[in-house]
Amino acid sequence: MTAKKKASKKKVSKKKATAKSSAKKAAPKNAFYAQSGGVTAVINASACGVIEEARKHKGKIGKIYAGRNGIIGALTEDLIDTSKESAKAIAALRHTPSGAFGSCRFKLKSLEQNKREYERLIEVFAAHNIGYFFYNGGGDSADTCYKVSQLSKEMGYPIQAIHVPKTVDNDLPITDNCPGFGSVAKYIAVSTREASFDVASMAKTSTKVFIVEVMGRHAGWIAAAGGLASTKDTPIPIVILFPEVQFDQPKFLAKVNDLVKKHGYCSVVVSEGVKWPDGRFLAESGIKDAFGHSQLGGAATVIANMISSELKLKNHWAVADYLQRAARHVASKTDVDMAYAMGKAAVKYALKGHNSIMPTVVRKSNKPFKWEVGMADLSKVANVEKMMPANFITKDGFGITEACRTYMEPLIKGEDYPPYKDGMPQYVRLKNIGVPKKLKKFDL
Amino acid sequence: MTAKKKASKKKVSKKKATAKSSAKKAAPKNAFYAQSGGVTAVINASACGVIEEARKHKGKIGKIYAGRNGIIGALTEDLIDTSKESAKAIAALRHTPSGAFGSCRFKLKSLEQNKREYERLIEVFAAHNIGYFFYNGGGDSADTCYKVSQLSKEMGYPIQAIHVPKTVDNDLPITDNCPGFGSVAKYIAVSTREASFDVASMAKTSTKVFIVEVMGRHAGWIAAAGGLASTKDTPIPIVILFPEVQFDQPKFLAKVNDLVKKHGYCSVVVSEGVKWPDGRFLAESGIKDAFGHSQLGGAATVIANMISSELKLKNHWAVADYLQRAARHVASKTDVDMAYAMGKAAVKYALKGHNSIMPTVVRKSNKPFKWEVGMADLSKVANVEKMMPANFITKDGFGITEACRTYMEPLIKGEDYPPYKDGMPQYVRLKNIGVPKKLKKFDL
Repeated sequence: MTAKKKASKKKVSKKKATAKSSAKKAAPKNAFYAQSGGVTAVINASACGVIEEARKHKGKIGKIYAGRNGIIGALTEDLIDTSKESAKAIAALRHTPSGAFGSCRFKLKSLEQNKREYERLIEVFAAHNIGYFFYNGGGDSADTCYKVSQLSKEMGYPIQAIHVPKTVDNDLPITDNCPGFGSVAKYIAVSTREASFDVASMAKTSTKVFIVEVMGRHAGWIAAAGGLASTKDTPIPIVILFPEVQFDQPKFLAKVNDLVKKHGYCSVVVSEGVKWPDGRFLAESGIKDAFGHSQLGGAATVIANMISSELKLKNHWAVADYLQRAARHVASKTDVDMAYAMGKAAVKYALKGHNSIMPTVVRKSNKPFKWEVGMADLSKVANVEKMMPANFITKDGFGITEACRTYMEPLIKGEDYPPYKDGMPQYVRLKNIGVPKKLKKFDL
Repeated sequence: MTAKKKASKKKVSKKKATAKSSAKKAAPKNAFYAQSGGVTAVINASACGVIEEARKHKGKIGKIYAGRNGIIGALTEDLIDTSKESAKAIAALRHTPSGAFGSCRFKLKSLEQNKREYERLIEVFAAHNIGYFFYNGGGDSADTCYKVSQLSKEMGYPIQAIHVPKTVDNDLPITDNCPGFGSVAKYIAVSTREASFDVASMAKTSTKVFIVEVMGRHAGWIAAAGGLASTKDTPIPIVILFPEVQFDQPKFLAKVNDLVKKHGYCSVVVSEGVKWPDGRFLAESGIKDAFGHSQLGGAATVIANMISSELKLKNHWAVADYLQRAARHVASKTDVDMAYAMGKAAVKYALKGHNSIMPTVVRKSNKPFKWEVGMADLSKVANVEKMMPANFITKDGFGITEACRTYMEPLIKGEDYPPYKDGMPQYVRLKNIGVPKKLKKFDL
């Protein structure tokens, strides 16, 4: 997708003024928070940041209602009253993976295409005195949030819509990185290192190539994280297959063969988004999701069969799938901190009167790694997909460069273990008590 | 495989006497240690136990030579001098997954079938003054170790062969459990819980079933561990497919459908060893390994396709493969402690003059969990495969019973994190310096 810039800075300033005046009223507006798109190990840390910060400002923000299953909760008036949750339960969101209020894959159409949905949103917001809209998601969700942010201007309903960045795909623009990515990157780096140690032990008489398939439909951010498994202290022969690089089977097989000859073994990290020269995914299933994206899976099998039949090398393959994005047990502390900070910042920006923005991570220095919270105009975020810089991939197309390491290493730094009981991580399940409905049923 | 009991207690006693007298000699015998079969997250903790304990008894045990790639290192006189490794490096083995000296899949034939190999072993042991043989592996390796333990009796070479139990499959008899299993069980339990939280968040508009394929060719121990993801505090709808239970497609699909109707989602843990009613594996690849076992993979895909086509339920699937057995980052402390204790005990038993035995874990009580080190006669271990007790599987064939939980929960208890640097676990790589060869080359 390419950028569609629909709003000028001038219009945004006008809305800020409207929002500020509404924030001054005696009865504080309630807030709506929802989670959208694929969930992550740390999206609940952002929820925690939003709710903990909002609870500090009871005079300015009333209740925090969460949408049950994202924007669907708003459309169907299925709201969760987070004030029924204890401070302890909300704090536990910080170490709980997944989306505690339920997420959704549902993209609002444009106002021209489906005015009915926007009218319904306003109806629900008005019925529940909602003046703040916090939407926690990736690129598609930023688009939904942007559309909501235009309700003041387009339909006269005063709302401040703030997008809280989240996506393992790391493809949101402007922000240095997206909360959720650091933890999936750490999981893939750690797992690739561990499995590579394993295959190295087995290579003499058994498995010589280990293949792991990772997420990343259009951008190779997650695949690149596999490269972090290999460091100067602990070098590992790894071949990365990026969606950015057209798959060249003979070149790939030659590379694997060379590494196995030299080191006795190698590991392959293959992105689900890798394509054949004709543009088809390596393992296209033909099924599409609600956003019209092809549902993928099976690139590892294709690679494994190729290595077996062409190189006659014994191999093993894994598909990390949800395990990678849910792996809170090995989350990056940096990532958890950023996710929490984004949630907190969203509320602070709202209280300052902002609308149609997204808090961002601004990198100040690499060594030592320093970052601070910044702000992006949502019109510049929605529908813009950040690709990996070309200089992050080595010339042969199979590895990561020092520039990539410099960018990525700080993001996986630090451990932030959940509490355990009897050997199992203690993840919270909220009560998720519904807010009494005031309106008629709405059919999606 | 069934038990083949070849040695009587009487004969074992005779060998003990021989060993004792040789241990009294002035020049202490050297020890041989090797790793065999599929490696685990904690097999190196056993190596650590063997080496640290042996180093304490320099007057009785000389050098500890490790076989490079298991028994192959002995046959090819490819020995590693572990005395070249620092105490710090050996200590780091305790938190390093994989086999630090290389493992192998190589099964000694019987003495009748291949006398040449046994003569070679004796030649190598004699050339390097080796009197202790510690072999760290599973069922097939116990058989190799048993055969070596008979060299004194069969070929007159004085050797004490002690098997150190290790296998993620948990299928060695007599011992309460096998080091390696507790950690893979913890990984599967934690990962299944995390991915189940994920799919629960997505279920309203997207994925409703999550499938994870786990190891366990003949026994459902690892699949059963998936059941630990669900507890009284945190119930999760999980369907387990055990190799012990003949796969009944209509019954399985009805179960999944019921759970999704009731809970909105469910998770499926499928063992790689699940079979169709005709005895074929759900996803047989046709490839066999060095032991003649079929190489498996892809049961998850079969289940996923079935759920898509028959139930029309959107699903996601993962194949954990090596990630599960290499996952030292989430190892069970109980498992690490046991693995280390088994290594230590092997040396202590050797110093007491034992031959042809295996240290075991003896469970003394469940609540509180107490265990101690015991000893098994190797003739009773080799080629015996411990299956899951029938009362560990629920009547419907899809879950685990309280008896299974009582057995399994203590094994995943406790965390034992490796040290991290810059976000990555610091696993040791030994120098693995070879011992100068004294003999002619031997062709395998």
